[in-house]
Amino acid sequence: MKYFGGIEAGGTKFVCVVTDSGKEILAETRFPTTTPGETLNRVIDFFRSQNQQMDEPISALGVACFGPIDPQPTSPGFGYITTTPKPGWANTPVVPPLQEAFHVPVAFDTDVNAAAVGEGVWGAAARLDDFLYLTIGTGIGGGGVSNGRPLHGLVHPEMGHIRIPHDWNRDPYAGFCPYHSDCFEGLAAGPALLGRWQQPGDTLPPEHPAWALEAHYIALALQSFICTLSPQKILLGGGVMQQAQLFPMIRAEVTRLLNGYVQSPAIFDHIDEYIVPPGLGGRAGVLGAVALAQQLVASSDAA
Amino acid sequence: MKYFGGIEAGGTKFVCVVTDSGKEILAETRFPTTTPGETLNRVIDFFRSQNQQMDEPISALGVACFGPIDPQPTSPGFGYITTTPKPGWANTPVVPPLQEAFHVPVAFDTDVNAAAVGEGVWGAAARLDDFLYLTIGTGIGGGGVSNGRPLHGLVHPEMGHIRIPHDWNRDPYAGFCPYHSDCFEGLAAGPALLGRWQQPGDTLPPEHPAWALEAHYIALALQSFICTLSPQKILLGGGVMQQAQLFPMIRAEVTRLLNGYVQSPAIFDHIDEYIVPPGLGGRAGVLGAVALAQQLVASSDAA
Repeated sequence: MKYFGGIEAGGTKFVCVVTDSGKEILAETRFPTTTPGETLNRVIDFFRSQNQQMDEPISALGVACFGPIDPQPTSPGFGYITTTPKPGWANTPVVPPLQEAFHVPVAFDTDVNAAAVGEGVWGAAARLDDFLYLTIGTGIGGGGVSNGRPLHGLVHPEMGHIRIPHDWNRDPYAGFCPYHSDCFEGLAAGPALLGRWQQPGDTLPPEHPAWALEAHYIALALQSFICTLSPQKILLGGGVMQQAQLFPMIRAEVTRLLNGYVQSPAIFDHIDEYIVPPGLGGRAGVLGAVALAQQLVASSDAA
Repeated sequence: MKYFGGIEAGGTKFVCVVTDSGKEILAETRFPTTTPGETLNRVIDFFRSQNQQMDEPISALGVACFGPIDPQPTSPGFGYITTTPKPGWANTPVVPPLQEAFHVPVAFDTDVNAAAVGEGVWGAAARLDDFLYLTIGTGIGGGGVSNGRPLHGLVHPEMGHIRIPHDWNRDPYAGFCPYHSDCFEGLAAGPALLGRWQQPGDTLPPEHPAWALEAHYIALALQSFICTLSPQKILLGGGVMQQAQLFPMIRAEVTRLLNGYVQSPAIFDHIDEYIVPPGLGGRAGVLGAVALAQQLVASSDAA
C-alpha cells in the first residue's frame, strides 16, 4: 500500500490529510494559519506522527497553496510563496522544509489548480481533459485544465482579475480590488456584496436584486472564459456559490450573453450539466493536493 | 526527403505550399475562395501536379482553416467547416476529400491555432510552451498554446468574442458584432474602426485619437488573456496591427491596467519582448499548417 499526504495551505487555515492510493482519508487535521515557521512545523509534526503509525511512510506530498506562488519545478524559486500581501508570508519556502523533513517528492501548485486537478480525478470533471474550476468567495480564483494538464504559463492564471463590463447605471459601486477596482473580483467576490449592499452576502435573501447583478457579472466573466479556453465544463465553487439560486440565474445569463455564438449542444441543450457545482465540495483543495502527489509519483515511475 | 503540404484555407483566399522537412518552400499557389467544390478541386489539382514533379509524394497535409470548424479527430464531424455564415460553406467537408485524393494523414485546425503552432516552431514563440497568437484584422481570433499544445476544449476558442468594458463616454460607437455588439471584436476589429471614424483604419494618421482608443481596447482584452492563460509571450498580428505605432501604446496601456499585479520580470521589465509582432508575418497560417502536418506524422511515428 502506498500512502500520500495532501496539504491545503490556505491564507486562514491549513488542512492536512493522509490517504491510501485512492481518496480514502485515513487521517486529517486542520489548524489556523499563523506564522510560516509555526504553521509549517505543525504540518511536519502531523505527517511525522502519521508516518510512525503506518506500516510504511508516505510516498509523496502535494501542496495546494494560496498565492501568488512559484510552481515551476525548473525555477530557482520553485516551492515558494512569492509576493503575497499576507503579513510574514512573502518569499516563504513551503516545499523545501517538507523535502528536508521527509525526503519524498513534493508536488506544489495553486489552491485552484490543485482543486481543478482533484475535480478531474474524483469530482465533477472526472474524465474531462479541458475544464475550468472557479472559486468565488473572499476572492476569485480559477484553475484551468487544458489537454489534461493544469494551466501554468508564465506564472499562473489570476482569473479573478480579468476585466468585465461594469454597468455603472445599474451599479454605482466602484469595486474593491486594490489593484484594479472593478475587475471581476473587485465587482463580484464576497467583499463586493458587502460593500455594495452594506450587508454580508449570506444575509441577503434569495430574491434580493443583489443576486441578479451577481449572476450578470459572473456570466460576463464566464463568457470570456468560454471564448478563451473553450472548457468542456465549468465548476463554480466557493462561499458565494453556496447561494444555490445563483446557478439557474448564471446559466440563463450565459445563454443570453453568448446569444447563439459558440454552437455546441453542451452549452445550448445541456447548460444544466455545463455550469455545475464542484463534486468534492470543501475537500477539493486538499484532495487535489493528494492527486498532485499521486501524479508526480506516477510521472516519475513512467520516466 | 519527406515532403509536406500546407493549406491556409481562408474566407477570401486559399494558399497552398509544398515544403521539405524544414520550412523551405518548394512550391506555392494562391487563389480566391469561391465555391467549396471549385476551391477544393484547385487544392487537389495543385498537390497532384506537385506530386508528379517530386521524387516522392507528400507525406502529410495540414489545413489551417477559417471557422467555426470541428477539429476533434474523434468526432464524427472531424474535418468539417461547421456553422460559418459564409454562403455555401456551412457543413463543408474539408479533410475527407483530401484524404480520398491523397491517402495521407491530414491535420486540421483553426487558422489561428495553426498560426500559433507555426510561430512556436519557426517564429516569434520558438521554444515556448505557453503563448498566445492573436490576429486583429477584419475579425479577431486567438490561438493559444498551453503546455506545448494548442487549446481546443469543447469546440475551439473564439477569443474575439470576450467581453471587455466599453467606455461609452469616450466612445459612443455601439460595436458591430452581430451576436454581441460590443464584444472585443465588435469594438476593436477593422470594421469597428471604419464604423466609428467613418474611414478605414489604414487611412487614419498615426497621431489620430483612434489609435489610443484602439490600444485601450486591445490592452483590456490582453489583461483578460494574461490573467486567464498566463502566456509567456503574446504575438499580435493581422491587418490592424500593421499600424506599428500601436505596439508601444498597447504595451504602456497593459502595464497601466495590470497596475503591478501579475509580478513577473517578463511583463514589468521586458514588455517590449513580451508583446510582439509575429515572426512569420503573412505566412504564419500556411507554415502553421505545415507544422501541424509534421507534428501529426511525428506523433504517428512515435506511437
